[in-house]
Amino acid sequence: MPRINGERLLADLRRIADFGRYETGVHRPHLSPQDVESRHWLAGRMKEAGLVPVIDGVGTVLGRSPKAGPRILIGSHSDTQPRGGWLDGVMGVIYGLEVVRALDEDPATAHLAVDVASWADEEGHWGQMTGSRSFVGMLSEADVDNSRHRDEGTPMRDALKAAGLDRTPREHLEEGRYRGYLEAHIEQGGLLEANDKRIGVVTAIVGIYQYRLTFSGTQNHAGTTPMPIRKDAGAAMMRLYNEVMEKFPALSGPRSVWTVGKMSVEPGAPAIIPGKAEMILQFRDADAAVLDRFEKALLAIVDAANANGPCRVECANLSRTMPTVMDDRFLDAIEEAAVAHAPGKTMRMPSGAGHDAQILGRRLPAAMMFVPSIGGISHHFTENTEDADIVLGCQVFADATAKILTGN
Amino acid sequence: MPRINGERLLADLRRIADFGRYETGVHRPHLSPQDVESRHWLAGRMKEAGLVPVIDGVGTVLGRSPKAGPRILIGSHSDTQPRGGWLDGVMGVIYGLEVVRALDEDPATAHLAVDVASWADEEGHWGQMTGSRSFVGMLSEADVDNSRHRDEGTPMRDALKAAGLDRTPREHLEEGRYRGYLEAHIEQGGLLEANDKRIGVVTAIVGIYQYRLTFSGTQNHAGTTPMPIRKDAGAAMMRLYNEVMEKFPALSGPRSVWTVGKMSVEPGAPAIIPGKAEMILQFRDADAAVLDRFEKALLAIVDAANANGPCRVECANLSRTMPTVMDDRFLDAIEEAAVAHAPGKTMRMPSGAGHDAQILGRRLPAAMMFVPSIGGISHHFTENTEDADIVLGCQVFADATAKILTGN
Repeated sequence: MPRINGERLLADLRRIADFGRYETGVHRPHLSPQDVESRHWLAGRMKEAGLVPVIDGVGTVLGRSPKAGPRILIGSHSDTQPRGGWLDGVMGVIYGLEVVRALDEDPATAHLAVDVASWADEEGHWGQMTGSRSFVGMLSEADVDNSRHRDEGTPMRDALKAAGLDRTPREHLEEGRYRGYLEAHIEQGGLLEANDKRIGVVTAIVGIYQYRLTFSGTQNHAGTTPMPIRKDAGAAMMRLYNEVMEKFPALSGPRSVWTVGKMSVEPGAPAIIPGKAEMILQFRDADAAVLDRFEKALLAIVDAANANGPCRVECANLSRTMPTVMDDRFLDAIEEAAVAHAPGKTMRMPSGAGHDAQILGRRLPAAMMFVPSIGGISHHFTENTEDADIVLGCQVFADATAKILTGN
Repeated sequence: MPRINGERLLADLRRIADFGRYETGVHRPHLSPQDVESRHWLAGRMKEAGLVPVIDGVGTVLGRSPKAGPRILIGSHSDTQPRGGWLDGVMGVIYGLEVVRALDEDPATAHLAVDVASWADEEGHWGQMTGSRSFVGMLSEADVDNSRHRDEGTPMRDALKAAGLDRTPREHLEEGRYRGYLEAHIEQGGLLEANDKRIGVVTAIVGIYQYRLTFSGTQNHAGTTPMPIRKDAGAAMMRLYNEVMEKFPALSGPRSVWTVGKMSVEPGAPAIIPGKAEMILQFRDADAAVLDRFEKALLAIVDAANANGPCRVECANLSRTMPTVMDDRFLDAIEEAAVAHAPGKTMRMPSGAGHDAQILGRRLPAAMMFVPSIGGISHHFTENTEDADIVLGCQVFADATAKILTGN
């Protein structure tokens, strides 16, 4: 079995954190100057590891192995959230690089072929998982034409031109090239830590259903409008939210989550009864049946609210991402490797966050592995993982890759 | 008894609506160029009616009667909400002007003295009821120094200078000059209309207690944070709001109102559990005992929320305005006049909105009278009242003024 080099792994992670360093984290949104620079550095490291790297027409860095195979694709992303953490998700990319090097260095595994990808824009500054979607054929040229930066509104085409990528073709998945896809990531939650585990074997990536609920009432003076005749859109929103919070627990799977992260009332003045209110509700589960159960309950709550009045409620579905189930044999390989290196310290769990693996999983057998996030902190520059866990995770990941490629 | 001239009254109301006309309403915030222009026009009309007008150091227009008395002060305000209605509150000022003229024209009442005021900034662009508070001695020079426009942040001193009022003294209430204060206003609600009444005799101006409720939780990823360990500040806010809505009805007086007009969550993204939430709750009643009951219940709800967790709730009182009870003899005079002109069409009611009468009422016996608002619409350019109701209201108001001054 291959032996990874922990110091080399950590040194590469620390080096790439220089590109866009912010406090103890990194600010490296996709196609920012720091991001583009980091991609060239990454391509250089891939070349040194014996891969043939290319930065494609949306910014994905793909390092292809010149070996005959059998072959596995390992990927994650090196772009970050604004003022995000230093490991999310570049750790998975550097794991790929280190696995290539470790397999090469062991005569028993030197024939095994691994391609490594850093998918463009996983954090969605220009769309949703732009790089992996482009790779599997889910992104048209028109999609790229229409893509704008989510905050600044600038065209993606302009940013690609500034990065020197406007005349570069996009890379696409070659049929039959891979046995499957593997991705490692920090957990971004506190489940491993709470259970005193060090390796998470990801059974599925949750599906997400998301809705905009709009409440229409009558804006009026908060002093002169008697309670019985009010049509208070804010009060209507609160009533519906409470119904959701009361009814969903009974319909929940063991790890379902539901969230209202955004809510507002109009006009939003202390002495004016809100005439309009809006909230975004989303729920996530690894089981599509649970998601459908939630949706049915939500629509029943909305229907009842409309029947009871006094405000009108509209419920618009914004998205339905289906759960992605991971490949059982791959999961077994990861688990076996984890048990060998850290007995009793592994657990199976779904991923509550989205990952490129859910896109690749549509075309290839796929699996994911987590290492613990200290304090469960994510999408913040204080995000971190113990060095020992980073190193352990990479060793487990290398073993699992070898197992999958050799069938042992 | 005096007879008002309905056509003259309506013509003056239509003329002053030219200053800042917006759609079918008026945009005339205090000290805007249109507002300043309208004050000069108003001073001119007062002079024509035999009063001695002055525009004072905060913009209040005060027309003093040269007669010996007995004397009444009639006032309201001619500034408007942004894109507000054409009658709120200039109708009450023009009523004063018309009452002066009608009393003059009847030999039986020509000796009665009425001063008329258009109080500066009742709509609170620069503070709260700046003009009437200045008049009764509740506004210091330092208050004026510190006053800034609520939206634009410009100093009131600059706006007064631009209006040519920076070297003008402020007028103050002379002890013993008045028997009392009278104010007429549109209802701004739908109670008169719903009860098929045409004159509202205002028994009290409600008190308002207002609170900022701040909820502190833990911001986290909406996918990776299990429900049992969440500290969702938005959910905590909705739970507390729901408790208020459940408990307040049992504590309510017949016309109590309570409102959450403003609420927000941070950071306000669909996939992030809110770490902070805030709402403004206010309640109003004409009875201070009811307000105290509400406050006690609110604080108990907050204490229970803090005891139960998981979020921390802070409740900060922002203001406590006490109810102002109107003078009984004045109310009787208004009611008698109303019964004479519109039998069966009058009702007693509190004012849910604030008015300058609550400030004057601290120093003088005071009373208010309402005419109906069509559809209860207020603070919007579509606000309106039937011409016949405007005219009827002024006649009732003139009779009541004469009754109060003559003791008949």
